[in-house]
Parts: sequence; C-alpha cells; structure tokens
Amino acid sequence: MALRHLISPLDLTEEETTRILDLADRIGTHKEAYAHLAEGKQLATLFYEPSTRTRLSFESAMLSLGGQTLGFAGAEQSSATKGETVADTVRVVSCYADIIAMRHPKEGAPLCASMYATIPVINAGDGGHYHPTQTLIDLLTIRQRKGRLDHLTVGFCGDLKFGRTVHSLVNSLVRYPGNEFYFISPEELRIPDYMIERTLKPSHSTYREVSDLEETLPKLDVLYMTRVQKERFFNEEDYIRLKDTYILNKEKLELAPSDMPVLHPLPRVDEISVDVDSDPRAAYFQQVQNGKYVRMALILALLEITDPLTGEKVL
Amino acid sequence: MALRHLISPLDLTEEETTRILDLADRIGTHKEAYAHLAEGKQLATLFYEPSTRTRLSFESAMLSLGGQTLGFAGAEQSSATKGETVADTVRVVSCYADIIAMRHPKEGAPLCASMYATIPVINAGDGGHYHPTQTLIDLLTIRQRKGRLDHLTVGFCGDLKFGRTVHSLVNSLVRYPGNEFYFISPEELRIPDYMIERTLKPSHSTYREVSDLEETLPKLDVLYMTRVQKERFFNEEDYIRLKDTYILNKEKLELAPSDMPVLHPLPRVDEISVDVDSDPRAAYFQQVQNGKYVRMALILALLEITDPLTGEKVL
Amino acid sequence: MALRHLISPLDLTEEETTRILDLADRIGTHKEAYAHLAEGKQLATLFYEPSTRTRLSFESAMLSLGGQTLGFAGAEQSSATKGETVADTVRVVSCYADIIAMRHPKEGAPLCASMYATIPVINAGDGGHYHPTQTLIDLLTIRQRKGRLDHLTVGFCGDLKFGRTVHSLVNSLVRYPGNEFYFISPEELRIPDYMIERTLKPSHSTYREVSDLEETLPKLDVLYMTRVQKERFFNEEDYIRLKDTYILNKEKLELAPSDMPVLHPLPRVDEISVDVDSDPRAAYFQQVQNGKYVRMALILALLEITDPLTGEKVL
Repeated sequence: MALRHLISPLDLTEEETTRILDLADRIGTHKEAYAHLAEGKQLATLFYEPSTRTRLSFESAMLSLGGQTLGFAGAEQSSATKGETVADTVRVVSCYADIIAMRHPKEGAPLCASMYATIPVINAGDGGHYHPTQTLIDLLTIRQRKGRLDHLTVGFCGDLKFGRTVHSLVNSLVRYPGNEFYFISPEELRIPDYMIERTLKPSHSTYREVSDLEETLPKLDVLYMTRVQKERFFNEEDYIRLKDTYILNKEKLELAPSDMPVLHPLPRVDEISVDVDSDPRAAYFQQVQNGKYVRMALILALLEITDPLTGEKVL
Repeated sequence: MALRHLISPLDLTEEETTRILDLADRIGTHKEAYAHLAEGKQLATLFYEPSTRTRLSFESAMLSLGGQTLGFAGAEQSSATKGETVADTVRVVSCYADIIAMRHPKEGAPLCASMYATIPVINAGDGGHYHPTQTLIDLLTIRQRKGRLDHLTVGFCGDLKFGRTVHSLVNSLVRYPGNEFYFISPEELRIPDYMIERTLKPSHSTYREVSDLEETLPKLDVLYMTRVQKERFFNEEDYIRLKDTYILNKEKLELAPSDMPVLHPLPRVDEISVDVDSDPRAAYFQQVQNGKYVRMALILALLEITDPLTGEKVL
Repeated sequence: MALRHLISPLDLTEEETTRILDLADRIGTHKEAYAHLAEGKQLATLFYEPSTRTRLSFESAMLSLGGQTLGFAGAEQSSATKGETVADTVRVVSCYADIIAMRHPKEGAPLCASMYATIPVINAGDGGHYHPTQTLIDLLTIRQRKGRLDHLTVGFCGDLKFGRTVHSLVNSLVRYPGNEFYFISPEELRIPDYMIERTLKPSHSTYREVSDLEETLPKLDVLYMTRVQKERFFNEEDYIRLKDTYILNKEKLELAPSDMPVLHPLPRVDEISVDVDSDPRAAYFQQVQNGKYVRMALILALLEITDPLTGEKVL
C-alpha cells in the first residue's frame, strides 16, 4: 500500500471518513482494546506555531495508544531559525519517528512536507488553509448528536470570512445529501465568494446568508459558533456594535430547538457565555474529548495498524 | 470518594500528611515496587511560568511510576495567549490527561482550576501563595534528619517577607506541638504581620524575630535558608551591607550544632557558599531527591492507586 | 567501574570508538533486540540553546531503547534565568534522571557538569568546542561507505575556521594511519593555525590547503561539506563572490569519483544543491539515521547495559 498522509479533509473519501469516525467511536467505548497498539512507535509533533490544545491532543492520543512522542512547540525551538527548509526537516525527522503531526503558519507547508517525508504526515493546521482533524471532530460530534450527517440544517455563526474550521466543515458537509446552511455573520465577516463559487454552487447546496442569530436559531438542527476577533474590524465602534449580536447566551439559546447541539472549535473568548456550558446542548467539550479519539483513530489508520475489534485495517 | 486536589498544604490533615510522608519514604527504599503503578496514566504539567526544577521533578515522578507526561513549560506555549480562561483550559485538559500539576503566576489560579477540572489538580506553585509539594518535601527532610516534626527549634533565614516556602512551612509546623521559631532577617525582609497575627499567635507558638545569624545558629535544631534577592531592596548600599550577613559559609556553620540540617528550597545563588555542600549537615540535595518521592506519593494518592506494600489506598 | 562521561570524542580510545560504532551498526540491523533495554531509565535533555535536530535525535534514541525523556529545549526554560549554576542544575537533575545530554553555548560547560553530576553526561555540543556524537556519526558513515577509517583522502570544504564538526572529525581521523586531508576554503575561512600546530603536525599528517573545489574533487575518497555563513565575511561582495565556489551541485559532482560519499552535518542552507540529494553519493541523510543509532549505542554504553547480542558491556 502507498504511504498515506492527511493534509486536507477531502483526502479521505466519504467511505473512509465513515470508517475513521466509526473507529473513533469504538475507541471511545473500548479504550483498553487500543491501549497498546502503538507500542514502540513515535509521533513527532512539529509545531511551527504554538497550539497547545491541538498539540496536547495529539500527544495524549499517541500516549493512549501506548506510543511515545517527541517534537517542538514553536518555531523558535526548530531548526527553521537556522534556515533549514521544511523538506529537509521532515526528511530528518523521518529518520527518528514513525509519524508526523505538523502545524505551520504557512499554507501548504504540510503538503510540501508530505512530499519529502518517508513516514505519514498529518496536517495539524496550516494557516487559514486546512485543519482536517478538527473537521473530523466536528463531523463525529454532529453524528453522535444527530445520528446522521445528511439532511441537516446547519448554522455557522461569527467570523465566516477567516474561520478556517467553518470552510473546512462546509466542504465536507456538502458531500452528504440534503444539507442546508445558514451563514450568520456581520457584513464584514461574510463567507468568502470562493466558498460560494467553488463549494456551495457546484454542489447545488441550499444556503442563506443572514445577519440575525436570534431569528435564525429556531430553524437550525446544528449551530456552529466561532470567535469574532476584534482585530478583524476596521474600527472599534463597529466591533462593539456587532460583537454582542453574535454572542450566544442562555437567553438566546431558549429560542433554539431542544436537540440543537452547539459546536465551537475552541478556544472561545466570550462568544459563548459560560451560562451555556451547563446546557445539555453545549457540545464543545464533547468535541474536545472526540478530538482525542479521532486522532487515535487517524494514527492507527496511517500507521496501518489492524483494529483488534474488527480484525481489519482502517483504510 | 470525592475528587481530591492539593492546592494548599493544609488541604491535608496531619494524619494524611503523615501517610503521604510515610509513602514517600517507602518509595525511596522500594522503588521497584512502585515502578509500574501509573501505567496508562498521563500527567499534564501546565506551567504558566517556567520552573524547570519543579516541572522536571513532577515529570520524573510520573515516569518513575510507569506513567506518561505531556504539557507546556511557559505561558507563551499555552492557549492563554489566545485569551482562553484557566477554567476552559483545565476542562479541555481533563479530556486528555488523568491528573494535572499547575504552576501559575497568579495566586488562586490552581484553586480556580480545581473547581472546573474533572481530574485531580496539584498546585505546583501559584505566585507568592502556596507551593504545597515544597512544604511536604521540607517536612519529609526534617523528619528524616531529626526523626520527628515536633518540639523542634527551627530557624528561618533570609527573605522572610516574600519567601512563600517559609510561610507555607511555618503554617504546617505550628500544627505539631512544641515547635519554636527564630526568624532571622534584615528589617526590610521581616516575616509579614499576617503570619504573626493569623498563624503564630493563634497557635500560641513561641517565636523570636532576630537579625543576627551567627548568634542564633547555636540554638537551632533546623536551619532553613532562603535567597535574598537584590531587587527586594530600596537601594544597592543596603543590599551590599546586608547580604553578607545572611550568607551561610563553612566558617559560620562551625557555630551550629553538629546535627542541625541546613535546608534550602533551591535554586540558590550565593546565600549558601559551595564549601558547605560537602558538610553532612547540608540537606538541600536530599530535599531534591525527596521532591521526586513526595510527588510520586501524591500522584498515587490523588489517582487513588492502592499501595502494593500496605494493600491500602493512601488517602 | 568509574562513572563514564562523553565530553570530547577523544575521551574514547580508538578501540572503544570501534566498539561504539560496531554496536551502532548492530542496532541498525537488529532494532528489536535493543527495543526494551533502557526500560525504567530516564534521559534528561538539558539544552541551554535550541538544537532541534540533536535534541530530537537523543530523545528518539532513548525512546527506541524503551526509556523515557524529560528536559528543556532552551535556556529561557531553565533555572539559569534564576542565576543557578550548571553545577547545581546537574546535581539536581542527577536526583531525577539516569543520564544527561547537555547542549550549552559556553565551551566547557558540559565538562564542568560532568564533575558534579552523579550520572553520566553526554556533551551534545558546547559552543565552538566539541560535538562528540556528531564525530561518531561521521566516522560511522565513512566506515559504512568506505569500509575503513584509514588510508583515506578526505576533503573538507567551506567554513573550516569556525566549523566545529570539521575540527573534531580531523582530530579523530589523525588517529588512524594513512589518512590525508584537503582543506578547501576561501582565505578568510582557512583551518585555524592551532589545528595545524596541535593536530596535523604532531600526527605527521599529510594535508593541503586549497581554494578550488572543482580541481580537488577528483582526488577525494570522502567529501565533507559545511555551511558558509554570510555573517562570517567582512563585506557582502566577498560573500557573494565566494559562496558559489563552495556550493556543491550535480554538475560539479560529476568531477568526483563514483564512490565518494558526500557528508554534511546539517542543517544545510544552500551549500549543497537539492539536485545532489538523489545522487547515491549523498550520505547526509544516512548520517541523520546513523545519529540515532550512535546515540542509542552511547546511552547503552554509559548506562553500562549489557549488549544482548554479544553478552558483553560495551565499554
């Protein structure tokens, strides 16, 4: 079998995605069966920009499979400061480790890495580009909450212009039949034209761009919140005027269906009020837990380790 | 049993403290019996400010129990830079790991963390507040050297105003009967009033505030040295005038009883001369070794792992 | 047996060097036999300056022996910022770990460390001084490619003035009979006088200082390339004029013997063109792989672990 990497969520077919999500579910319910499968294997976490949550999740995933980890947590710790190319770095790390998780501020760096590595590379986020493990986490959480990934009305709220996780999840959801989208954002942070032209129109998806969260909430099966960053606005008045509109709190949540999960890729600042945390619809910490299981599943899949519960390889 | 954390040394009763110290002693003498007890468990070291010694000690402790570690070594590596609250961070980390050791420059942060974590939290130092593992190390070392924790005359020397480890150890020692204290410091660095009003007077402890180390040495059962930091003084002349007075060297040590251990929480700069290191009374590297055993004992206790030598849980 | 450290490559006799290289070769071909030998042991990586490649190689080596790692990746993470001496730090770390790999910008720091540590210390590079594991890697790679370490004509090209790895490898190669050297560099970056006076002349080695790479290539059994750093030159014109002369590319390589390995300690910037990478003479990624095996061999040797394939200790 050829060496597999995961650079974009669409590197996996729908069927392969289903197999990864199924495995993540099995890992969550049968942890012991998977606790020693990666013994003697090493994951290198090459993080050219800090991302504690993602790095710790990958490390915890590898350790929970019985494997080991090594790596760096920021560019200042890497050989990049000595002018080394990403290509050389991954060739070197291929001599040390068995699989790489790479985070890089430059779009395309993990793809470039995968061309030179002799071990599998997982993209752990590259600039505004891809973050495929987050997309798998989002899919798994929606599937656990709603029982399906098709015929859903999904609302995305907040910064839809720069929100990499939003674009990535939309790209995956249009592959399933019958999904409809509400894009809820201020004018300044609307979903980019290229998402409309290259993803939504070609897939004949039904979508609406709206600006009012409260009005939209009753119509949704799933709500995906994102952070509205102050620095995205031209002036502070606009920011202050707009940000409250896109904050979800207990009061607004009363307008939503009782089985509408609220997702958020975290970290949040104040776009979801803490009084929502205890609501059963809050799904963002479940996403965190799923993050570990999805990454365990991916490591097993790319290392071509047989799943002991099915007796088969995953991919 | 309810989830236990260790935020302040006084979270442990005297009896519980004794049980932790006893276990630390057993670990020191029977390392092999404890080498695999935490297999499959993960310690997250969340260090919002660097503290190599403490972090490495926690990591070594967990590894020596057969467990694994993950975490970050400074705030710039954490999601705090993205505005995430400590509460959210520990909820996230609770999805990855089994126990947390947290160091934070802000007093109260570990207590706050313990309210949101769903796994045990050990305070690894919060600002000028608590450093409970250091206190347990100090108690263990005194007990090993003197055979008891009561009826001791203990001298504290140096910076008694800002010395967190001093306040913490005094708070613990007043719980044992018959202990007396000498507080040896320059006027500028005297023990704070609140230690006198809230700890020493309520416990009816005998204590004296003095300024002369040499005069006091012959009266002591135990000497606890601390660092006198230049930046604590209003002007350089005062610093230069005073600092030599509070430096312990071989010559001054001749005035002390032959069985008076010298403790220091380390790192030292020059407040203990290196010619003291070879004196059998020097106990500061023994403290370092005890640091590992105490942390192993705490991890076992908070993870509710049964001690194989006693067949019982620790707490 | 007395505690052994590795501070300079010459700390090992020729015979001991051979034994380390033999073991590294065995590890490369029988990984499974060595996969659990360091279980329960901990390597502390004390890196006072960043060096990702070297740190990851040491960590991967220890993990591949079944051991564990802990440490810090830069001085800002160490207690050095609190004024602690290297002597105190290694005494502390001796209480936590079983073996130390230390990188330090100050020459002599690892030697000093070895005087205070109660566990073995491996020098992972100290300023312009020593980098003994790199030298062992270079020797192993040459021996694998040429079948011997004697009677070789070795060319060193680039920055021979500041190139620590060059000096170190020459110091080792003069111990084997019949080796000859070409030192290929611009005037500004010639091999230092002390190398000539203290190493080359006393060993009666044949050597030539030349400035033309292309003319020299046909005469070489081995070529060792190094980086020419811009900041070494007095002015930019000299740099631009000279640097191309010392860049190895596919075209120049045609002038070299078909079995002349090209070594480079990495990271490279542009002194070896990427079109050389696919040439079978390119040996620099083999060096990286050997780096892991050499470090595994050293850890086993210094921890006095018996080699299961020979039934003997290494040193």
